[in-house]
Amino acid sequence: MDIGEIIAAKRDGRRLSREQIEYFVGAYVRGAIADYHLAALLMAVYLNGMTWDEVYHLTMAMRDSGTVLDLGPVGSATVDKHSTGGVGDKVSLVVAPLVAAAGVPVPMVSGRGLGHTGGTLDKLESIPGLRTDLSPDAFIGQVRESGLAIMGQSERIAPADGKLYALRDVTGTVGSVPLIASSIMCKKLAVDPDGLVFDIKVGQGAVLTTEQDIRRLAGLLNRIGRAAGMKTVAVLTRMDQPLGRAVGNAVEVAEAIGCLSGEGPKDLLEVTLALGAQMLLLAGAADDETEARDKLQDMLRSGAGLRSFREMVRRQGGREEVVDDPGQLPEAPWRLKVSSPGTGYIGSVNALEVGRISVRLGAGRQQLDDRVDHSVGVLVHKKVGDAVSKGEIMAEVLAGDEKRGLQAAKDISRAVVISEQPPDVPSLVMDIVEGGGDEPEETIYR
Amino acid sequence: MDIGEIIAAKRDGRRLSREQIEYFVGAYVRGAIADYHLAALLMAVYLNGMTWDEVYHLTMAMRDSGTVLDLGPVGSATVDKHSTGGVGDKVSLVVAPLVAAAGVPVPMVSGRGLGHTGGTLDKLESIPGLRTDLSPDAFIGQVRESGLAIMGQSERIAPADGKLYALRDVTGTVGSVPLIASSIMCKKLAVDPDGLVFDIKVGQGAVLTTEQDIRRLAGLLNRIGRAAGMKTVAVLTRMDQPLGRAVGNAVEVAEAIGCLSGEGPKDLLEVTLALGAQMLLLAGAADDETEARDKLQDMLRSGAGLRSFREMVRRQGGREEVVDDPGQLPEAPWRLKVSSPGTGYIGSVNALEVGRISVRLGAGRQQLDDRVDHSVGVLVHKKVGDAVSKGEIMAEVLAGDEKRGLQAAKDISRAVVISEQPPDVPSLVMDIVEGGGDEPEETIYR
Repeated sequence: MDIGEIIAAKRDGRRLSREQIEYFVGAYVRGAIADYHLAALLMAVYLNGMTWDEVYHLTMAMRDSGTVLDLGPVGSATVDKHSTGGVGDKVSLVVAPLVAAAGVPVPMVSGRGLGHTGGTLDKLESIPGLRTDLSPDAFIGQVRESGLAIMGQSERIAPADGKLYALRDVTGTVGSVPLIASSIMCKKLAVDPDGLVFDIKVGQGAVLTTEQDIRRLAGLLNRIGRAAGMKTVAVLTRMDQPLGRAVGNAVEVAEAIGCLSGEGPKDLLEVTLALGAQMLLLAGAADDETEARDKLQDMLRSGAGLRSFREMVRRQGGREEVVDDPGQLPEAPWRLKVSSPGTGYIGSVNALEVGRISVRLGAGRQQLDDRVDHSVGVLVHKKVGDAVSKGEIMAEVLAGDEKRGLQAAKDISRAVVISEQPPDVPSLVMDIVEGGGDEPEETIYR
Repeated sequence: MDIGEIIAAKRDGRRLSREQIEYFVGAYVRGAIADYHLAALLMAVYLNGMTWDEVYHLTMAMRDSGTVLDLGPVGSATVDKHSTGGVGDKVSLVVAPLVAAAGVPVPMVSGRGLGHTGGTLDKLESIPGLRTDLSPDAFIGQVRESGLAIMGQSERIAPADGKLYALRDVTGTVGSVPLIASSIMCKKLAVDPDGLVFDIKVGQGAVLTTEQDIRRLAGLLNRIGRAAGMKTVAVLTRMDQPLGRAVGNAVEVAEAIGCLSGEGPKDLLEVTLALGAQMLLLAGAADDETEARDKLQDMLRSGAGLRSFREMVRRQGGREEVVDDPGQLPEAPWRLKVSSPGTGYIGSVNALEVGRISVRLGAGRQQLDDRVDHSVGVLVHKKVGDAVSKGEIMAEVLAGDEKRGLQAAKDISRAVVISEQPPDVPSLVMDIVEGGGDEPEETIYR
């Protein structure tokens, strides 16, 4: 095998064989081909796409670069969820405990923030002491005993994807449907839950910005699941303004705890219930969506969801008292209020910009080896459609130093549009897609 | 400036600004951006192309990454030639001395072999002692005093191109018209002769394989020359079988010396005279092509061309006695004859394959840091159209060891097709292109 020939083939729009794909994934993991080889290949894939065969072989080659877990010891049908990434998206922290409390074990593998989007692991690590580097055995044991564990991708779970994702992030090749699909599925297939619900986000704050792209991705993800024997369903949701009010790490954990305590906010709950209902349905724990939603509401009202979250925190070494007192989470030294420049309605809050502002405050990484500041972030007090008066506080910036805080406050003002008329506020959940991905054999996914 | 934004812009088919191009060229030379950044960018350029503006700014940014020479001290109009690369292409070694002998100084900058194509520097270095790492002052002085000097691209001449070319070679991005054009022109503009003749090769042994591509390249090269105030003309020549009989390094030097001594071969002489005539015309040293060709023929017959070659060898520290006795060039220990498997005519000799065989024998590099074996190569005794009888010697392999020699002999047999009927043998010179490159502003060169 010659990496030069593989690059040239994809550059010229030819289909890569299973052997070629297995070669480059394996050779990259063991360091036999260079970053620049793969960077050129990834750009060729981004622009020339991949057929279904290629996507499937890539997914499987990345899965098989590490261990494949056996969840048999858990003893009942398990289910996970995966979001393609957004701003203020703390749904995992709410939905996983609710589903676990409803009796369906959740073996969750999560990622870190990348680009302008946040990551569940970074958020969870705001909780003092909490560890996400569980061994496969500890992970499976915790799911069996308590119904919920959340771990990070490690050297053991699909390491090829870890290396590839880092390279994609710096070579402009993140937003490719076949690369996104294989990256998501290789990790999930390595853990191998029985069911998997995708939260596929579209809009200016998402990785994919057109409905056509997310529908193709939904079909492709479902098709990979079907081919690999995993039940899947995709929920398509809007990501134009941040989800909920909090964007950052500790502030998102606090908001998730609030949500589990029955305090909303409404949009976060809307997405949580839509995803959670699909998770229960996939696991056979409800007969229809109404029953599923009722179960989840019960888990909210009874506090069982919050107890499940607390148990997960405790078992993973975190300070469980934060559940009663989120004030024990890291707090930023600077808190700056952003007031409205006019009177009217919030017309839009640019999620991409808010995500970038949060990253620049230190809540995410600009370089791969940056350390995350868990205490900083943004609070969006006024959401799209809310009435606002001139001078009223519409957002707050939580900053580590005054200079960055002032800059962020200025940037937030520019990310919000005030309109005279109340804007239409469409439902966040656009569609639920089962099956799909049955495009003709020669279809090129881009 | 953010390299991520530059990669994304080209990936999405947007035009890069002069500032963006100057940034990435400069940042790459000083190590501020990584190979993988540029590999992704080069693949995006390969697939999405560049407009005229982008090509021009790229050329100028690469030229300005090093010194720009002042050939004023030479005192008269100078001219150089450049080949896009072929197999057995030793034209520079013949035409440069002939033109210099005819009174037009030749300040030549040459390259090394890349891929399956040979390089003038590697060939010249077969001559014991010969140096090509001349300082700019020594180079200009030698051109002034003796009319001819041949130097390699160094840290001083367009270093950005040296780095970019090496990366293109390993990332499948060599065969891109805008990248080829800017790479050729930045080096030549850094030396800045008054005139420049391109030998643009097309065919299975060339870097570009379609006539459409080479016509676009010819126009683009002429347009860059025009914009930068350099007189240029492009000669389009076929590269389907190796040029001449010798493919390698020492064997090509010996053939060039033979050609300067009046011994042909015919195809090498045909291309040499076509290019040399254009060089004399550009420098104003002849009124028309007939006069120019007559002058070059005089330089051949009188031995003035051979004397000019000898003088260049002597001044650059090489053993000048090789000119009288090419037996003093390195000789390979193994010499294997390849005989014809049938009777008929040579239908084709695959130049790409012969070039690859020569590289595998050690005459070129498979890795960037490989050492070249000057003694090895291939002699093609029977050329396309020659009659051949079963068992007659049609080629020879010069090898460093028996095993590689036997493999090469087997491979040579497969690279030659014997046909029953004599094939058409088209003229090597297809066209001469002046001007051009006047496509509309929005044209994307690929």
